[in-house]
Amino acid sequence: MTTLYGYFRSSAAYRVRIALNLKGLAYDQAPIDLVAGEQRGEAYLADNPQGLVPTLVTDDGLRLTQSLAICEYLEEVHPEPALLPEAPAERARVRALAQLVACEMHPPNNLRVLRYLTGELGVDEAARLGWYRHWVHEGFTALEAMLSREAGSGDFCHGDAPTLADACLVPQVFNAERFECDLSAYPRIRRIADNARALDAFRRAAPGEQPDAR
Amino acid sequence: MTTLYGYFRSSAAYRVRIALNLKGLAYDQAPIDLVAGEQRGEAYLADNPQGLVPTLVTDDGLRLTQSLAICEYLEEVHPEPALLPEAPAERARVRALAQLVACEMHPPNNLRVLRYLTGELGVDEAARLGWYRHWVHEGFTALEAMLSREAGSGDFCHGDAPTLADACLVPQVFNAERFECDLSAYPRIRRIADNARALDAFRRAAPGEQPDAR
Repeated sequence: MTTLYGYFRSSAAYRVRIALNLKGLAYDQAPIDLVAGEQRGEAYLADNPQGLVPTLVTDDGLRLTQSLAICEYLEEVHPEPALLPEAPAERARVRALAQLVACEMHPPNNLRVLRYLTGELGVDEAARLGWYRHWVHEGFTALEAMLSREAGSGDFCHGDAPTLADACLVPQVFNAERFECDLSAYPRIRRIADNARALDAFRRAAPGEQPDAR
Repeated sequence: MTTLYGYFRSSAAYRVRIALNLKGLAYDQAPIDLVAGEQRGEAYLADNPQGLVPTLVTDDGLRLTQSLAICEYLEEVHPEPALLPEAPAERARVRALAQLVACEMHPPNNLRVLRYLTGELGVDEAARLGWYRHWVHEGFTALEAMLSREAGSGDFCHGDAPTLADACLVPQVFNAERFECDLSAYPRIRRIADNARALDAFRRAAPGEQPDAR
């Protein structure tokens, strides 16, 4: 059985849940409590020295890390339904949208970075929240422009069916809402996120639906 | 003619230069001075609303962003020599190594994040350097463990020829050396980086070799 080591609120794990669900793949979940520090425990580090979630263990024992690498693997091994278009130029667009979230927006706002800010650097709560919202705003401003200007956009980030870009966007919107970021300047992002969240695959992947949700 | 909008010291642009060189593709360079803020200028933003380098404009006028998406595009359109292995499990490993650099190590240490730290948050020089080295250490500790433990490693990150993982690793090592990070705990990383930097494709991609180097 495929097993996903994740955490209900981890947006990287959330992306992989969406991809698995879109492809109709069954999986067990092994929750790793990031707030309690389980990802830094010996048992988990022995298998994933990155100390990060998600790890996907496939039914043939393969141990995969990094959410986008996992999604690309799923796409290669289970090509239907596709999370990437066929033409290289379109694939590049979907990957760029996904990476704008995964390489620019998410990293400065993930848990361990926020903890370094408040711990080692002694940043107070207001400044931490300002930091968080700053990177959301920076990223969503760019993303909204791309989604509005570029011909490829549709009901979803690319065309009228969900892709890897939507699997990254929806968890980022969830995070932004959780930190009460003002999303009024991003109507296209909100519409696409709403379209995606109406789908069963996205609904079942939501943090509140996971076994470790609290 | 293919044109790379980049900056000599941008590690994301450096990755793409390596990939282009490994594939033997010719390209012009259009330097964007990140320190002077040209990436935030109207002209550049009109084409890339992310305000980031690199952008690769292909000879058929395609405008590609996000370094890993660009490299995947080059791989799809110019498959030889390959930057990714053939088997999905191996491709997943190479992508995970690349993303450990591109999604975990580089983002908290890129220029705009460091500027927010010293500007908005008033972090002093010593704390900024501590931050920088902290994320290098976190990432390289994980990467060294993966490269040492996993069977796929060879003279390069994966096997005995350069892949996308090496195209990410070498710029990260360059950055770490520039910020005088102690790399003595990472012998495998250093050996692989040295092997890669001995190749002409990597040597020509180095920051000091670029037209805007200073």
